[in-house]
Amino acid sequence: MSEETNVVYVGRKPTMSYVLAVITVFSGSNSKEVTLKARGQSITTAVDVAEIVRRKFLKELKLSKIIIGTEEIKREEGGTRNVSTMEITLTRG
Amino acid sequence: MSEETNVVYVGRKPTMSYVLAVITVFSGSNSKEVTLKARGQSITTAVDVAEIVRRKFLKELKLSKIIIGTEEIKREEGGTRNVSTMEITLTRG
Repeated sequence: MSEETNVVYVGRKPTMSYVLAVITVFSGSNSKEVTLKARGQSITTAVDVAEIVRRKFLKELKLSKIIIGTEEIKREEGGTRNVSTMEITLTRG
Repeated sequence: MSEETNVVYVGRKPTMSYVLAVITVFSGSNSKEVTLKARGQSITTAVDVAEIVRRKFLKELKLSKIIIGTEEIKREEGGTRNVSTMEITLTRG
C-alpha cells in the first residue's frame, strides 16, 4: 500500500476542499506522495492547491513532478476536442 | 543576444495570439528557448499555448522546465492577496 500513489482529482469545488483532501492523505501514516490531476480551467485550481498546501500547511513538502499534456474528449455532437491536462506531485521530503 | 531568454507573458487575449507570438520568436534565427509566464486564471491558457505549439506547429520542441509559484499582489483597498504563477519553458531540441 505504501508504494501506491494517492491521486486527488481537482475539479470545480472550492479550492480549500482539495487542500483539505491533500492534507488528509498526508495524515495517513504511509502516504509520502500525492498527485493532483486536473484538466481545462481546473488547472489553475490545482496550482493554487499545491501552493497553498506547500506554503501554509505542510512546509516540508517538495514539488517532485509537474507534467502537462493533452487529452482528447468526445463531443456529444460527434467529433473530438482537445483539453489540456496537468499533474502535480507533492512528496514528503 | 542568443543567450537571452525570450519571455511571452500570457494574459487575457485569445490563446492563438500567444501561440503565434511563440512561433514568431522561434522563427528568429538565434532563438532556442521561449518562456511562457502566466498568473491566476491565465495559467490554463499558458498550458494550452505550450501544448498547441508543441503538438500542432513545432513538434521538435521540448518542455524543458515547468515552475509554479506564488506572488503577492497589493490590493487597492490595502493589504495583499496571493496569486499563483507558472512558467513553462519550451526549448528547440
